[in-house]
Amino acid sequence: MTSERPLAPELQVQRWFNTPTPITLAGLRGKIVVLHAFQMLCPGCVAHSIPQAKKLHEIARGGGVQVLGIHTVFEHHEAMTPVSLEAFLHEYRIAFPVAVDAPGEGRPIPKTMADYGMRGTPTTIVIDPAGRIARHSFGAEDDLAFGLFLGDLAAARSGALPAAEAGICKIDEGCA
Amino acid sequence: MTSERPLAPELQVQRWFNTPTPITLAGLRGKIVVLHAFQMLCPGCVAHSIPQAKKLHEIARGGGVQVLGIHTVFEHHEAMTPVSLEAFLHEYRIAFPVAVDAPGEGRPIPKTMADYGMRGTPTTIVIDPAGRIARHSFGAEDDLAFGLFLGDLAAARSGALPAAEAGICKIDEGCA
Amino acid sequence: MTSERPLAPELQVQRWFNTPTPITLAGLRGKIVVLHAFQMLCPGCVAHSIPQAKKLHEIARGGGVQVLGIHTVFEHHEAMTPVSLEAFLHEYRIAFPVAVDAPGEGRPIPKTMADYGMRGTPTTIVIDPAGRIARHSFGAEDDLAFGLFLGDLAAARSGALPAAEAGICKIDEGCA
Amino acid sequence: MTSERPLAPELQVQRWFNTPTPITLAGLRGKIVVLHAFQMLCPGCVAHSIPQAKKLHEIARGGGVQVLGIHTVFEHHEAMTPVSLEAFLHEYRIAFPVAVDAPGEGRPIPKTMADYGMRGTPTTIVIDPAGRIARHSFGAEDDLAFGLFLGDLAAARSGALPAAEAGICKIDEGCA
Repeated sequence: MTSERPLAPELQVQRWFNTPTPITLAGLRGKIVVLHAFQMLCPGCVAHSIPQAKKLHEIARGGGVQVLGIHTVFEHHEAMTPVSLEAFLHEYRIAFPVAVDAPGEGRPIPKTMADYGMRGTPTTIVIDPAGRIARHSFGAEDDLAFGLFLGDLAAARSGALPAAEAGICKIDEGCA
Repeated sequence: MTSERPLAPELQVQRWFNTPTPITLAGLRGKIVVLHAFQMLCPGCVAHSIPQAKKLHEIARGGGVQVLGIHTVFEHHEAMTPVSLEAFLHEYRIAFPVAVDAPGEGRPIPKTMADYGMRGTPTTIVIDPAGRIARHSFGAEDDLAFGLFLGDLAAARSGALPAAEAGICKIDEGCA
Repeated sequence: MTSERPLAPELQVQRWFNTPTPITLAGLRGKIVVLHAFQMLCPGCVAHSIPQAKKLHEIARGGGVQVLGIHTVFEHHEAMTPVSLEAFLHEYRIAFPVAVDAPGEGRPIPKTMADYGMRGTPTTIVIDPAGRIARHSFGAEDDLAFGLFLGDLAAARSGALPAAEAGICKIDEGCA
Repeated sequence: MTSERPLAPELQVQRWFNTPTPITLAGLRGKIVVLHAFQMLCPGCVAHSIPQAKKLHEIARGGGVQVLGIHTVFEHHEAMTPVSLEAFLHEYRIAFPVAVDAPGEGRPIPKTMADYGMRGTPTTIVIDPAGRIARHSFGAEDDLAFGLFLGDLAAARSGALPAAEAGICKIDEGCA
């Protein structure tokens, strides 16, 4: 089944944030790459997919999963420049590497976005350790279903979030 | 590592709901069992762990994961009888099998709850295909972290939730 | 306009919780009464209307607004007895007075529920200082719209919730 | 008590969005003005205060309440220019009038923000019909408490949100 997966095109990047050196998919062979394509002014990205990517980066770091962001601006280009993106990454405390997709030549859709055939933002693409596309989804992924997929794809787990205590009931203490 | 996991004690059950015949852990060898211990009047169970169990039951059915509920009443016993539980399961549309934990003899904590050393509700216990306890957590599990764990434990995935479209931005259509 | 409002029928109550003595609408003339009709196993009540009633009780106490609950059981009567309700009120930390609606004679709908023509739960009824019905709504009320209505009805305000600091940006300190 | 309220300083505005002609507080005497100060990259503004302002604009229009936004950029000025703000207002579907606060001369805090002594964003300021400051809060306001305050301040209500039906229980139909 793995052999049927299409090869993931290499990223085409104007510039990077949150990494000292440029990153390539070729250099990440052996890892699972979760590529979050977003626009900083996309409401669904801000509300759902970026928090999910931040959480995944937090719990899966060191565990064979690399979270990458890519800023795929296809509208309002003048409003979402790298200068604005840099402040956005700071204010939203985004710590994983983020690429600025290379501008399309003569058209609004940037190059990586076009190469992957993305339909809009947010788009989440999972690339397997062999560099092939294992999942491509448009819209907000459910956390539980996405976790099951990723965990199944490889030994993805390497951390855990502490269980929340809101509303729990303890023996001898009653409910919080 | 698997061999270090403790064997999961067999469930001790007063009666079952949502299953035509009684279920045993012994009969589920080869599957991953996710055992959700709850009380119907536990706020954290109602708000978090029961919705998670329902979602897991929905997306993991057929995929080697069996979701079981167990009603582990350790306080207000007269308020959470099987009669009340039955209405609760109906109103909250809980479709997975639910056991009523066997009452403790001379003490408020029921038998299965005591055998597993549970500290309260909600408690989530994951039992591996060999019948050993792979995870025991008290409180609300994060969906993403729990999904990663389960997916990693076995080929747990067999379904997916559709991506949500709230706030997405489509090429040529703008943001929803 | 006030004169066009229908008079609120007196409550018909089997028993009270959270009050040392029985309460009557007649005894609350001069105050705004917010009557929350609920069932302890109604999911929308637990998720939305009871938290709203608790918050209103907290911020409007002393300010001319009296929050009352009424347990209007019209189905699964044996599952939602006063014994179960008492534990529910304890576990969900409900501190405002709660009436148990008087059982219907020969039919499942209890008396107060029938007198008010309620269609189900949750139902929220606002009674003005003259004892007339100013609002009758079925389903979950939006907090902002409901607050505007209540505040407009009378000098309802007497407290405030502190502003939340999640995500705020402070001068000289940046964003939290 | 009204006489003790400080006069609201006139807005100092670089440019307006969502209004054909400039707006002044002087021109709004007789109305309640709810002034939402925000930055487009402030997470708490995007998550809480802007949705609240949008909802208030929706339900209170025509009812003597005027919602105004003011973009009070005090950091990352080059990232939150009017060009970026215009796209933000479009993507987040913000329809109420929004002012761009006049830049501070020789300092990062813009003029209106300084005149009001705002501490950061989000800040919500309520101006009474006489042009005096009735409320000044920093952080996210609770919907219910804010609604009570506004409704009490004047005949603020002129609309209502329909009650939500999630989880309701209907007589003869059971729970949704």
